[in-house]
Amino acid sequence: MARINRFTWRYMPKIVLEVSGGCPSVNVTCWRHQHTQQKSSSSAEFSEPKIVTQVPGPKTKELSKRLGQYQNIDAVHFFVDYERSRGNYVVDVDGNILLDMFTQIASIPLGYNHPRLIAAMSDPKNLTSFINRPALGSYPSEDFVDRLEKSLLSVMAPPGLRHVQTAGCGTCSNENGQKAIFMAYQRRVRGHRPPTEEEKTSSLMNQLPGSPKLSFLSFKNGFHGRCMGALAMSHAKWFHKLDFPVPDWPVATFPRLKYPLDEFTRENDREEQTCLDEVRDLIAKYKRRGEPVAGVCVEPIQAEGGDNHASASFFQGLQNICKESGAYLMLDEVQTGCGVTGKFWAHEHFNLSRPADVVTFSKKMLSGGFYFTEDLKPTEGYRIYSTWIGDPSKLVLLEEVIEEVKQEKLTDNAVQVGTVLLSGLKELQDIYPQLLKNARGLGTFCAVDFPTADIRDKVVSKLRNKGALCVNTGGCGVSSLRLRPSLVLQKPHAELFLNVFNSVLSETR
Amino acid sequence: MARINRFTWRYMPKIVLEVSGGCPSVNVTCWRHQHTQQKSSSSAEFSEPKIVTQVPGPKTKELSKRLGQYQNIDAVHFFVDYERSRGNYVVDVDGNILLDMFTQIASIPLGYNHPRLIAAMSDPKNLTSFINRPALGSYPSEDFVDRLEKSLLSVMAPPGLRHVQTAGCGTCSNENGQKAIFMAYQRRVRGHRPPTEEEKTSSLMNQLPGSPKLSFLSFKNGFHGRCMGALAMSHAKWFHKLDFPVPDWPVATFPRLKYPLDEFTRENDREEQTCLDEVRDLIAKYKRRGEPVAGVCVEPIQAEGGDNHASASFFQGLQNICKESGAYLMLDEVQTGCGVTGKFWAHEHFNLSRPADVVTFSKKMLSGGFYFTEDLKPTEGYRIYSTWIGDPSKLVLLEEVIEEVKQEKLTDNAVQVGTVLLSGLKELQDIYPQLLKNARGLGTFCAVDFPTADIRDKVVSKLRNKGALCVNTGGCGVSSLRLRPSLVLQKPHAELFLNVFNSVLSETR
Repeated sequence: MARINRFTWRYMPKIVLEVSGGCPSVNVTCWRHQHTQQKSSSSAEFSEPKIVTQVPGPKTKELSKRLGQYQNIDAVHFFVDYERSRGNYVVDVDGNILLDMFTQIASIPLGYNHPRLIAAMSDPKNLTSFINRPALGSYPSEDFVDRLEKSLLSVMAPPGLRHVQTAGCGTCSNENGQKAIFMAYQRRVRGHRPPTEEEKTSSLMNQLPGSPKLSFLSFKNGFHGRCMGALAMSHAKWFHKLDFPVPDWPVATFPRLKYPLDEFTRENDREEQTCLDEVRDLIAKYKRRGEPVAGVCVEPIQAEGGDNHASASFFQGLQNICKESGAYLMLDEVQTGCGVTGKFWAHEHFNLSRPADVVTFSKKMLSGGFYFTEDLKPTEGYRIYSTWIGDPSKLVLLEEVIEEVKQEKLTDNAVQVGTVLLSGLKELQDIYPQLLKNARGLGTFCAVDFPTADIRDKVVSKLRNKGALCVNTGGCGVSSLRLRPSLVLQKPHAELFLNVFNSVLSETR
Repeated sequence: MARINRFTWRYMPKIVLEVSGGCPSVNVTCWRHQHTQQKSSSSAEFSEPKIVTQVPGPKTKELSKRLGQYQNIDAVHFFVDYERSRGNYVVDVDGNILLDMFTQIASIPLGYNHPRLIAAMSDPKNLTSFINRPALGSYPSEDFVDRLEKSLLSVMAPPGLRHVQTAGCGTCSNENGQKAIFMAYQRRVRGHRPPTEEEKTSSLMNQLPGSPKLSFLSFKNGFHGRCMGALAMSHAKWFHKLDFPVPDWPVATFPRLKYPLDEFTRENDREEQTCLDEVRDLIAKYKRRGEPVAGVCVEPIQAEGGDNHASASFFQGLQNICKESGAYLMLDEVQTGCGVTGKFWAHEHFNLSRPADVVTFSKKMLSGGFYFTEDLKPTEGYRIYSTWIGDPSKLVLLEEVIEEVKQEKLTDNAVQVGTVLLSGLKELQDIYPQLLKNARGLGTFCAVDFPTADIRDKVVSKLRNKGALCVNTGGCGVSSLRLRPSLVLQKPHAELFLNVFNSVLSETR
């Protein structure tokens, strides 16, 4: 971004960002936010995006063709030069430098090639964690408890939760949380007596009584992963689900709030009340059917399903219903955890009167896993278990992430940068009311809706070619654009994004 | 092992292996095999086991107590000093040096801290693969296709299969293979027309027609993983299964062969024929029920379920039944892959007339994933997908593993060392007929049965305290001891194990 004028943003002349030989010139209409000096923590990164080919470029196309011999490649956006990528900028194999507002589906906590992580990886004492993957449940490493305490059990454990189990990815974190809940539910049903031989034997054949008729309640548009148990609770996109024989468990409506929230207080309260009533009705219905609801799974903000928010009182109400009905509450913080919403866990915004029963995590946490209450702790060995149940090498890196979050106050940073992003999105929606609505967010976890998926996808593609990778074309919800930057995004990056977004919108209307 | 006499093994005097201050002396009765000079590839490792405390020792107990504050620790055997562990020897935190015949549940391909893997990890050009985990399905790294070709698609791809998909662990490899099969089955049912809006919409709510009533056939005592879809096909141990509402899919009997195989040819043929008939009957039954069998999942050797073998003709027959009925055949090679049976894939022993439809892998392969036929390739993007679908950093290491397997002819080594192990087990079962039976194996994938689980567990515990970690106390099947050494196990290690085993057995009878 060459010149910025804080007050003439609306009618700024177009500025040439970069003109490369043989490539189309890329123009950006400057927007009001000033592209100020970047902070030192990002000093090693690029100063601005740079587009030298269309994205995807010729090298990506060539590599895609090769990969296509071996697997379906319709979801490949571009091949990345991870060695050259730095901080908030991802570099593709064609040399395009893109401001990454999506960061590997919300998975890169400190930007690319963060010096802290490079140092941790280069430390010979960590070498052995990366090349000897333990069967963690049976042969943990000498430093495993230390690492747990310094990373997952440090200041960032969710309020009131001090038990934790590692796992490989978000999906198996949710499946293991679900299993812990099914076990706790049945322990209660059994009055805490040990399982009988009949229960053990019948379970082996997927039969009653060992394989009980239990259900798990989830929400429309929720997404919790792709293995069968997590998939049965997921309802966001058909291509996650079609053709798979998943169980007929209860699916409740997640509130559809109207924006701006302060204009629709009464309507939104009513909507949330209706949804809570539906949850209560479904729990009663499944109890009558003989398939009681053992647990309720919900994201603090529905991410894949469209960045759908609900109020603190909705989540408080949901927790109360769980308590009344004897169902356990599982919060899926796979995408909302690790400080992006301005608190380490999104559910800390909800002032719940007691801890959630299970809180799952993955993505920016590098390790998957879940926190749980004492009540959810398995009473026998090998119940929550598999060969690896996670990868301690990820904890080596997570420890550094946590230190950086603390030292650099990155949750506060998410609040500050998020304020820039959200107020920018709101201003843009005032300027382009025919294109944008429902600007919303917590911290940098922001989104805005387009009239249709087609327009959204067109804008995403244009954004990519203006040097600001924003969101993958699979999109979020029906027609939302979602922002998932790293925790080291600074105000200048946010302003740059808003400027580029403004430019693309101005060409779109 | 101090002195060995090849011919007086049976009545050898007890030899003191090690006497440490304050610790019990550990005696080993020498067995016939000579503890010969170890090959150069293992030269960096210890020359022999060393027991300085009971296993688990005081430091393990202290760490277990700390870990127990946060999670159930009943499955923890001991804490490991991974930095000191070398080759075939695992060192625990109390300083005990154990010959590892179980290697992190069959997961360490080249022993601990192999020089090749250290070199790969120390190479700065690989650094970026370890610290920037890509959303692999959308943003693969520049070298991803090269790495696939040099590792998973190199000489070791299963016969006739040239499509591959990476995954995180064995469980999700099996779940993804299962999903690929459900999709292919439904594509055929739809006559390859695109899915309708009704199919898409209903799938989101887990309802017909988008969420069809399909089933997957599996075998008693089979084990395929712990997430819900893989778990529904697993029938090995109650603690994997109890309390979980898994679908009522068909479960067939896996052949129970009588040993020695050459004495019971007719009985075993009949047993296998009966099992195949049951498979055919179950497929017909579930078709009548309106829940057709889309796929059949089987391990080439049932591992967790007790090291149960079946003949080549059984697997050929199973493949024929699949072809007749339109079900796809999925071979779970999570534990049997990577050369341990003397061929790179165990099913190469079966001379199948055409490729399996899906072959899954994990453990020693470091990366999870599955190979599949052209027919199984998803026709839309994002169908076999999740944020990470594997971890390219594991391919960096796998490439080295494959090179080492080729250069050092480690599949041949598995045949040679396996011959020593199996003939040794057979000799020991002749000596201790009241303790051992059914010695069996392919390559180093060997097992032997005890009269009861209690005796097996007692022997395992004693073995551990003689410096030969053999098998975790969860055991294998009802009362089997299974051997799962690394690929770099040499004859002297096998002989050492057999000597120690002999010694323990002699004290047990």
